[in-house]
Amino acid sequence: MSGSIKPIVIQAGSRGYEVCRVEDDEWATLTDSLAIEEPLEIRIVQTIDGTKCESPISVTMRTPGDDTELALGFLLSEGLIRSASDIEGVRLCSKGSIVRVYLPAHCRIDTERLRRHFYTSSSCGVCGKTSIDAVTVHIQQPLEALPQAISPELIHSLPDKLRATQRLFDSTGGLHASGLFSTSGELICLREDVGRHNALDKLIGSQSYADDSRFSESILVVSGRVSFELVQKALVAGIPVLVAVGAPSSLAIDLAERHQMTLIGFVRNQRFNIYCGQDRIRRRR
Amino acid sequence: MSGSIKPIVIQAGSRGYEVCRVEDDEWATLTDSLAIEEPLEIRIVQTIDGTKCESPISVTMRTPGDDTELALGFLLSEGLIRSASDIEGVRLCSKGSIVRVYLPAHCRIDTERLRRHFYTSSSCGVCGKTSIDAVTVHIQQPLEALPQAISPELIHSLPDKLRATQRLFDSTGGLHASGLFSTSGELICLREDVGRHNALDKLIGSQSYADDSRFSESILVVSGRVSFELVQKALVAGIPVLVAVGAPSSLAIDLAERHQMTLIGFVRNQRFNIYCGQDRIRRRR
Repeated sequence: MSGSIKPIVIQAGSRGYEVCRVEDDEWATLTDSLAIEEPLEIRIVQTIDGTKCESPISVTMRTPGDDTELALGFLLSEGLIRSASDIEGVRLCSKGSIVRVYLPAHCRIDTERLRRHFYTSSSCGVCGKTSIDAVTVHIQQPLEALPQAISPELIHSLPDKLRATQRLFDSTGGLHASGLFSTSGELICLREDVGRHNALDKLIGSQSYADDSRFSESILVVSGRVSFELVQKALVAGIPVLVAVGAPSSLAIDLAERHQMTLIGFVRNQRFNIYCGQDRIRRRR
Repeated sequence: MSGSIKPIVIQAGSRGYEVCRVEDDEWATLTDSLAIEEPLEIRIVQTIDGTKCESPISVTMRTPGDDTELALGFLLSEGLIRSASDIEGVRLCSKGSIVRVYLPAHCRIDTERLRRHFYTSSSCGVCGKTSIDAVTVHIQQPLEALPQAISPELIHSLPDKLRATQRLFDSTGGLHASGLFSTSGELICLREDVGRHNALDKLIGSQSYADDSRFSESILVVSGRVSFELVQKALVAGIPVLVAVGAPSSLAIDLAERHQMTLIGFVRNQRFNIYCGQDRIRRRR
């Protein structure tokens, strides 16, 4: 599939991607700067009774930068340490994917409390590569080519259709939506939630008793930004096209491109950006 | 502290709160409808060798509604089951905080894969009540009253000051920011991240070596919506005022009110809503 993207580092925390900007029906190539999303693992290191113990505490998907502050702030704001003076040292590993926080032996971390606070997420792994490798085991078959290319007009129309059906957003101003559309632009299903991943899980769950092939010939539209997690969930379900009102993260693009998904962002004011998989969009000859 | 809020259920997924709407310097009381945020635990139930086994799989902070679909979609999109036909039954418990998914004995869940996908979060507990109780143990002392009440003019000015300093948002359109301001409106520190909780952790970490009293006399400004998690982290740090450009969730308000935090949302176009702790804001006599 054409439209391969070449990441270019612009500044710390963001990366430039070569994208297709579609305005009305005009196509242009430009460089779009996007937020980097990469996993960071926080580990506690203590020497107890002469033995060095290293325990993983958390993996979070973050924008690189200020990583030792992130680790310290996480331990403080989760109540795992009381003060920065509890800490003997903080070190970011050379590859930038692990922060080790060194604590004196007398400083006990309440792992039972920590366990209660665990919840699952598909943002995982110790580095972006590992995460992407890990998810491919779920994806049983490649995404399908659509029976016909989708017109830019249809893409332009999707956010308004999503918003028109979003019952709770209008009343609360605070909900994410995921909508599944047919390739002719009809809404199949919409779900809302405070968590963008929950809205998508509800949508996938609602369609799971129906004929599975609906996913493989449909378009997913999300109301906000696109994280790695949303791309992963859409890929596992077999949805070939993901359209977002907001921006994708770097890892979302990397994963989508690897699996030949069509990823479109910033759909607003008769414009959008195609990050990868542009062959599924109709181009005026 | 006055300004106590009375939740009123308006429709499934949202709840009405009595709030102070401040427009320029005029105060009015009105009912604001907000997204409900409550924890849901997903459990797998299997009968293996005659013994019934029940395993907690995930706790997620979600908007109630379509909870069995959420559980099913989660198991599918995380690759834990292949098809809805693997499932013998799905049941939401009477209190609405646990979904049990019944699987046949031969259907093995890869708990090691699941474990790798775990990461910590402060969104926790099996019901809102338990979560709120759990966090109070971290909060060592009540929030301080500020030396003087903050003017509405200062609140109106904060989002623009945050945005003016947000280096990465402008280039990527996809980052959350947390800014710490003095009560006279000067920016002390700003951090950005793809995750709103990470931006706040970075901010808290960056200030943790400084004099702690900065938190207790400062204002936290966040670029988006306010989840339970952000209020919890701000409370643990001892920050008395949280100002958001977006909407708070129901659980964010409940927690803020319980700890006499001042919570302000929808700060835009010379208007904002005070959800609780209005005594810290100056009212024209």
